[in-house]
Amino acid sequence: MDSKLIGVDLGGTTIKFAILTLEGEVQQKWSVETNILDEGSHIVPDIIESINHHIDLYKMDKSQFVGIGMGTPGTVDRDKGTVIGAFNLNWKTTQNVKDDIEAGTGIKFAVDNDANVAGLGERWKGAGENGDDVSFVTLGTGIGGGLIAGGQLLHGKAGAAGEIGHVTVEPNGYLCTCGKRGCLEQYASATGVVHVARDLAEEFSGESTLKQQADDGQDITSKLVFDLAKDGDPLALRVVDRVSYYLGLALGNLGNTLNPESIVIGGGVSAAGEFLLDRVNDYFQQFAFSTVRTSTELKLARLGNDAGVIGAASLARTFA
Amino acid sequence: MDSKLIGVDLGGTTIKFAILTLEGEVQQKWSVETNILDEGSHIVPDIIESINHHIDLYKMDKSQFVGIGMGTPGTVDRDKGTVIGAFNLNWKTTQNVKDDIEAGTGIKFAVDNDANVAGLGERWKGAGENGDDVSFVTLGTGIGGGLIAGGQLLHGKAGAAGEIGHVTVEPNGYLCTCGKRGCLEQYASATGVVHVARDLAEEFSGESTLKQQADDGQDITSKLVFDLAKDGDPLALRVVDRVSYYLGLALGNLGNTLNPESIVIGGGVSAAGEFLLDRVNDYFQQFAFSTVRTSTELKLARLGNDAGVIGAASLARTFA
Repeated sequence: MDSKLIGVDLGGTTIKFAILTLEGEVQQKWSVETNILDEGSHIVPDIIESINHHIDLYKMDKSQFVGIGMGTPGTVDRDKGTVIGAFNLNWKTTQNVKDDIEAGTGIKFAVDNDANVAGLGERWKGAGENGDDVSFVTLGTGIGGGLIAGGQLLHGKAGAAGEIGHVTVEPNGYLCTCGKRGCLEQYASATGVVHVARDLAEEFSGESTLKQQADDGQDITSKLVFDLAKDGDPLALRVVDRVSYYLGLALGNLGNTLNPESIVIGGGVSAAGEFLLDRVNDYFQQFAFSTVRTSTELKLARLGNDAGVIGAASLARTFA
Repeated sequence: MDSKLIGVDLGGTTIKFAILTLEGEVQQKWSVETNILDEGSHIVPDIIESINHHIDLYKMDKSQFVGIGMGTPGTVDRDKGTVIGAFNLNWKTTQNVKDDIEAGTGIKFAVDNDANVAGLGERWKGAGENGDDVSFVTLGTGIGGGLIAGGQLLHGKAGAAGEIGHVTVEPNGYLCTCGKRGCLEQYASATGVVHVARDLAEEFSGESTLKQQADDGQDITSKLVFDLAKDGDPLALRVVDRVSYYLGLALGNLGNTLNPESIVIGGGVSAAGEFLLDRVNDYFQQFAFSTVRTSTELKLARLGNDAGVIGAASLARTFA
């Protein structure tokens, strides 16, 4: 029987699963709701049950599975296979994820941070084209990053490598949830775009649908800002320009530091596509050093929601 | 006979050599002047001659030598062992350094960029304490960097990883020799400190020896600025504060990106010692994300001029 991998992408709303070949081809996908009740104590049992159930359902054999890889929020101890501080899962105490899942499934298990795992996915089967030096930045509610350099995922001393969302782009700028000021996340995440939009709306005096909606107290979203900008709304264009400036500055400096072959931009905000990418790239060219300008390319992510399960599965390849 | 390494630190003024044990203990050191005449065509023959001569002099045997490692300015092709564009050596065309030195000495040879090699030295036997995640920044006439992450020296797609000197710290700031604006190098290298000093002197109106010397058209050096600051000169203190701010911003963001266990600061400007380090650290704490603040430590380099030969020698350990 062919060897397979299982990838698990654990999020605050859903848990996504996939069965893949060793080459990274997704053969089966499913998902279940995340039950965060009772301090998230149902999550690991639910994962075990769902995996065991689907292996039966697909009439597969456990011996086929090289391993299970999982991406998770929170702080991961990769060696011990534990997770702590995943607040959107209600995991406040240390969770022995690896021990429990290995015992419950009989399959080897590896775990890493969710942004790292999405980066591994885009690097392996997405825009990173399996390169040795690929940086991944995900623009969602927050901003995360996964850095592959010299063929290796970087973790740093305390697992904080790739915290691109907390790169300071505006000294004395917006206060971040992390406690410091001027973090990229406050300007270029979905919530950051809205913050920038509300601030620029206050000082804007021309004709603008975005301005009207902001003044009317209507709900402003990152998607609305980009949609209006694409339609030529002058305030929305100004917001996109400001967001692109901060992204270009942060990614230019990421390029100057790591000189990856590609910097892959994913997450909800990246749904704005080439419209955003072109503008970020203009600033990237301005802030990147000449060698980096010509050797590091900005790209849009290609795998969408599958990046997590694919990257997670790639963690389990080491067991092959 | 004991196995040995040879380290070569090729600079525009001198070529430094050392013979080391496999554990990195320096046993012999010597240096020769760099002869950059005739498009630098004497350099490689001089290196070969000097190595062969010293092996004879110390009554050693070539078979004892595991390999020669060298740090060089310019753009290095590590696989081919070639160097191009080292302008302070007058090397304008591709130099087949590896082939020539291996043929001339009969010893295996490896080469890398000088800042990378100095970083390897500080990591192995200096302030980096042989850690897996060590960033090295050298503040000299320019600013260079060598990044070790996950136990590996990072190179990036085109060898530009670690170009910390060209991280943008002041958008629309001073014009850099690289063509872009606001590079760290323009604010915190030896020449950068002087630039900052001259600019701040213009707008400074109080009592200051530094101000007087600048107004008198006297030669201002980075060392003078730090010496006067240590004596309490108010303008000099302001200059050091500005320089420390930019360094703290760049190193804070380097920390947010790589989360190394230590960021080691070397080069001429770092001779200002704890006086500089303390001030940079204050800003680093402001610009680094909480996890990085508590896990990444700023340190002064310990090896001085020996970092190059020691790190160069470490390149040759792979031949053992």
